[in-house]
Amino acid sequence: MDQEQARRWLATALDEARAGLAEGGIPIGAALYGADGTLLGRGHNRRVQDGDPSTHAETAAFRAAGRQRSYRGTTMVTTLSPCWYCSGLVRQFGISRVVVGEAETFHGGHDWLAEHGVEVVVLGDPECVELMRDFIDRHPTLWNEDIGDE
Amino acid sequence: MDQEQARRWLATALDEARAGLAEGGIPIGAALYGADGTLLGRGHNRRVQDGDPSTHAETAAFRAAGRQRSYRGTTMVTTLSPCWYCSGLVRQFGISRVVVGEAETFHGGHDWLAEHGVEVVVLGDPECVELMRDFIDRHPTLWNEDIGDE
Repeated sequence: MDQEQARRWLATALDEARAGLAEGGIPIGAALYGADGTLLGRGHNRRVQDGDPSTHAETAAFRAAGRQRSYRGTTMVTTLSPCWYCSGLVRQFGISRVVVGEAETFHGGHDWLAEHGVEVVVLGDPECVELMRDFIDRHPTLWNEDIGDE
Repeated sequence: MDQEQARRWLATALDEARAGLAEGGIPIGAALYGADGTLLGRGHNRRVQDGDPSTHAETAAFRAAGRQRSYRGTTMVTTLSPCWYCSGLVRQFGISRVVVGEAETFHGGHDWLAEHGVEVVVLGDPECVELMRDFIDRHPTLWNEDIGDE
């Protein structure tokens, strides 16, 4: 896909990540875009805010998009490489593309998705890296909890 | 694990599946048990009830269990083989075991989980099979929507 469009869409996910941080949460945001470029849903990690370990950024955006008959042509944009849980979501529902803000602070399942036919764009965005690096430095235990790392 | 215990725990997941069916929903239920056998959370698919595509039975049980520091020794019990989304959940959070009611009407990611060190017990329970078979016969479109199958 067009890198400029990918960066524009990433801005939505980044807004979500910053909103999560401002609420005292884990700063990861995501957005689901339709095949025609419509924003279907957006959201951010809500582990801290709702005490809900099941709401990662990607699942929040997916939920916000409501029921869809097909995910063909849709793009999941996320500030951070998707964990196995969120990668599984993308694969199961046939989401066509994943735009990853960064995969330096955490390397999830995006290679596995690419192997299974998902178009994956990794942007290496410095602001995404900085958000996560700062957060992990300040809250390592909370971050480990969010990815099930003991 | 002990098959008798697995069947006792499956009864909780089956209760959830039946509750979902009674609400007009997709009859899949799950329960998360702690390493000491305590029930941590239980739930069922809520696509229809809440218009929420992100709440599969396993994610509902996981959410109901709240924040946990570790999933070591826990068991996810589900009436149906977990899809990629729910299999990813199990792998990411290090859930140690999965008890699958049946894998005949749908074969998800449980083999992949076994390859990655998760203990998998498939019970082939006739009531679980019947619940899903009847449901898929009556609501094929809804079922396909739930697994992202066009």
